[in-house]
Amino acid sequence: MEIALLGGTGDFGEGLALRWARDTDHTIRIGSRDAGTAETSAAEYDSQLGEAGLNTDITGDSDEIVAESADVVVVSVPPEYAPDTVESVSAVLDEDAILVSPAVQMTRDADGFDYDPPAEGSVVEAIAAVAPGHVRVVGGFQNLPAGALCDFDNELDADVVITGDDSDTRALVREIAEGVNGIRAFDGDPLSNTGVVEGMTPLLINVVTNNDGMHDLGVRFQ
Amino acid sequence: MEIALLGGTGDFGEGLALRWARDTDHTIRIGSRDAGTAETSAAEYDSQLGEAGLNTDITGDSDEIVAESADVVVVSVPPEYAPDTVESVSAVLDEDAILVSPAVQMTRDADGFDYDPPAEGSVVEAIAAVAPGHVRVVGGFQNLPAGALCDFDNELDADVVITGDDSDTRALVREIAEGVNGIRAFDGDPLSNTGVVEGMTPLLINVVTNNDGMHDLGVRFQ
Repeated sequence: MEIALLGGTGDFGEGLALRWARDTDHTIRIGSRDAGTAETSAAEYDSQLGEAGLNTDITGDSDEIVAESADVVVVSVPPEYAPDTVESVSAVLDEDAILVSPAVQMTRDADGFDYDPPAEGSVVEAIAAVAPGHVRVVGGFQNLPAGALCDFDNELDADVVITGDDSDTRALVREIAEGVNGIRAFDGDPLSNTGVVEGMTPLLINVVTNNDGMHDLGVRFQ
Repeated sequence: MEIALLGGTGDFGEGLALRWARDTDHTIRIGSRDAGTAETSAAEYDSQLGEAGLNTDITGDSDEIVAESADVVVVSVPPEYAPDTVESVSAVLDEDAILVSPAVQMTRDADGFDYDPPAEGSVVEAIAAVAPGHVRVVGGFQNLPAGALCDFDNELDADVVITGDDSDTRALVREIAEGVNGIRAFDGDPLSNTGVVEGMTPLLINVVTNNDGMHDLGVRFQ
């Protein structure tokens, strides 16, 4: 399967790219608004994986180019840019493409982070509102810590919840998620349930901030 | 320390009462609007603990009576009744009393549960708005599953986040929480951060609902 990470030059996209490239046979492509930046990141990720003894072939190009041929498109950009990014690639998306939204919109004040969803209810619903009708949209991966993903010394043991309005699509994305060693993926049912998934991320950051010795927290349901 | 569980005849109050009575030396008192109901529940809890080989002395009385002498008052009632319950005991609360709110306000539709905080931002902030000024108010225990608490066959391994505007009070309540075997209590910083803690509970319920083999879920940050 071909997975494109739009905004894959950021920490979170990097983490997912490295893990999928290491643990699965999927084709991983890095997107960015600037093709050159994406190519540079892709080469860096290959180099990191090479140091870990792996011979990978991550490629990079503009968001539009990598979105065009992808089966799964992860919208790994800051939440305020997510709908615009999706609109910028809408014309080229395959009719069977799946859009995945890991982004969380938060506010921060002196006390900590708070969840601040867009008017649509969640970032993924804001994406669904602008995505072409034929494209399936799911939420997922919001509660994974980017730092832990990027650090292979970190043995992942983290849960994700996949939401979306089509159960076969949720099942497929859960399988893709669980391709990464140490990730368990749960069914979150319809897209309208995504708010409570996105809403856990500010809590994880607050727990890290307020408690000594905690860093890069994910979550495990048990 | 004397802990009063207002509405302690419900499942969640029962779970906390049983665990504190089993694992700590705190005096546990069960409150209810009706003193007789509270006495009955207290006797049942003692009986359950007796079957586990423990000789405990949980007592029950009206919410007002148990609140009056308590060091820590847990407002273990449905969220829509929490502010009224606090107002009903406000006149008798000790000036050093600590009010603890574990309640979460949710809505449910065909798709699942969603977080639906009161206008104050969270249930605990709604409680703080009506509590006497001298009383310290903290949020905590929202993400513990009542069923797992009540079942001693279940080895707890669950995290809680304690929020409140006074750091010494948070530290004290964290210590009381960690008196229960298997609970880790984290610092959540000010009360204004409680929304993201309460908001995790509907997610836990949705994960249980949508995934076979999951039940009574708590959470672990890792």
